[in-house]
Amino acid sequence: MSFADRVRAVIADRGRLCVGIDPHAGLLRDWGLEDSAAGARDFGLRVVEAATGRVGVVKPQAAFFERHGAPGYAALTEVIAAARTAGLFVLADVKRGDIGSTVDAYAEGWLTPGTAAEADAMTAVAYQGVGSLREVFARADAAGKGAFVLAATSNPESVALQAAVRADGRTVARATVDEVREAGHGIVVGATAPLAALGLDDTALAGMPILAPGFGAQGARLADGPALFGAAAELVLAAASRSILAAGPDGIADAIAAHAEEARW
Amino acid sequence: MSFADRVRAVIADRGRLCVGIDPHAGLLRDWGLEDSAAGARDFGLRVVEAATGRVGVVKPQAAFFERHGAPGYAALTEVIAAARTAGLFVLADVKRGDIGSTVDAYAEGWLTPGTAAEADAMTAVAYQGVGSLREVFARADAAGKGAFVLAATSNPESVALQAAVRADGRTVARATVDEVREAGHGIVVGATAPLAALGLDDTALAGMPILAPGFGAQGARLADGPALFGAAAELVLAAASRSILAAGPDGIADAIAAHAEEARW
Repeated sequence: MSFADRVRAVIADRGRLCVGIDPHAGLLRDWGLEDSAAGARDFGLRVVEAATGRVGVVKPQAAFFERHGAPGYAALTEVIAAARTAGLFVLADVKRGDIGSTVDAYAEGWLTPGTAAEADAMTAVAYQGVGSLREVFARADAAGKGAFVLAATSNPESVALQAAVRADGRTVARATVDEVREAGHGIVVGATAPLAALGLDDTALAGMPILAPGFGAQGARLADGPALFGAAAELVLAAASRSILAAGPDGIADAIAAHAEEARW
Repeated sequence: MSFADRVRAVIADRGRLCVGIDPHAGLLRDWGLEDSAAGARDFGLRVVEAATGRVGVVKPQAAFFERHGAPGYAALTEVIAAARTAGLFVLADVKRGDIGSTVDAYAEGWLTPGTAAEADAMTAVAYQGVGSLREVFARADAAGKGAFVLAATSNPESVALQAAVRADGRTVARATVDEVREAGHGIVVGATAPLAALGLDDTALAGMPILAPGFGAQGARLADGPALFGAAAELVLAAASRSILAAGPDGIADAIAAHAEEARW
C-alpha cells in the first residue's frame, strides 16, 4: 500500500481533520496545568482522549515538549504511544532535516516500528534538497509510514525563498513538490499559502498527501478547503490546533467534533 | 558583546577546531560501546574529556541521541552539561526551524540559561525564510548566545535550491547570508560548498561567524581553510568529526590535538 493510499484510507475511515497537540505555555495555563513536562504530558493525553473516536489524525508538535528538556521528550513519547494505542494516526511534527547518516538517525528515531517515539509519519524540511531526505523516505517506506516535506508555507517571510527560481525554471516550492511526488511521500502546504506566487496550483498538488496547517485560528475556514485546494483537496489533512485547544479541557471534545464535521469534504 | 565578538574570543583563546560528537551506531561499535542511550552518553562524555583543554568548541549532533528516544535525549543533555562545566563552547547541532511560538519553543529548549539542554549556540534552518527565525535570534541575543543558520551546504542535492534566484536577484544562499548578517548571527557553510555556483564569495561571508563542516573525512583539509574561506576565514569554526572519532577512545586525545594544530590559521 502506497503512503497516498494509506492517507486515503485514514480520511475515508475517520475524516481529514488533524488535531494539533501544541502544549505551549499559554495553553497550559489556560487549561489549569503546570508549565512543565508533566503538564505537557497531561495536556497531550487529554487531547488524545478527546480525539479518540472523533478523528483519525493527531499532530503533536515536538517543540512544545522539547522545551521541557529530556522529561518533555519522555512526555512526548508517552503521548505518541497513547495516541497509537488508541488507533490514531500520529503525525510527528518535528520538521527534521539533515543529510546522510544524520538524517537517517532522525528517521530512525521517529519512524522505527517498536520504538517509544514511533509515529506514523513525520514532517521534514529540505533546505539541503529533497534528495537529502532519501534516508527518511527509505525508512518510511520500509515501515509503511510517510514523510511530509515542507513545500509552501503561509508565513509572509517564506515567499521570497519558496518562490525563488531554480536553474531548471521551476520555483523552489514547485520542485520540492515534484521531487517529493517522485519519492512517493507527502507535502506541507499552508492553507493560506500564496500558491500562484509560489509557482503552484491545485493540479500540481493533486493526488499527493498534503498536510495543511493554517485552518481555524490561523485564518482559513475548514469549510473552504475544497475552494482552497481544488483538485488536490482529496488527500488534504486539514490541521487545526489553537481554535480547538482554546476550548479548554471541558470543551475540547465538542470542539473536535464540530471541527471534524466542518472538515467533511 | 556581539555574537561575532564572542566567537572571535573563543577562537583567539582556544582555536577554531570544532569537535563533532556523533555517536552513530558504527562508531559506538568501534569504540566497544553499546548501541544505546548509555553508549551514546559514555561516548559523548569521553569526547568531552578528550576535548577539554585541547580545543574550545564541541558540536553534539542531536540526531544521534534522538534515535535512542527519551533516554537518548537525557544522555545528550548530560553530555552538553559536562561540556559546559568543562568550559567548552557547546554548539548544539539540532537544525531546528519553524515559525512563531513553535520556533520560539525550540530556542527556549536549547538556549535558555539554567536549563538542562542549555547550549552556547544552536544550528537552525530557514526554509520558511530567515525572518521565521526571529524568535531564535531574540532568545539568543537575550542570553549572549547565537544561532548558525544553514546557508550553503556541500551535499550535491542542495545546489539547485540554494542557487535558486529570488525576485530581488539574489540567490537563496546569498539572501540567507545577508539576512543572517543583519540579524547579527552566524551561518553554516560547508567547507566544500560550491560558493561561486551559489552566488557567494569570501567577501560576502567576511566578518560573520561561520560553522564549516566538511573538514577531515568529509573531504577538505584543515590546512586549506585560509584558501577555502579567504577573507572570511577569520571567524570560521572548522568542524571535523569522523576523522577525529575514528581514532577510537585511546587515540582521540592525540587526534584532537593534531587536528587543532592543523586548524591554527
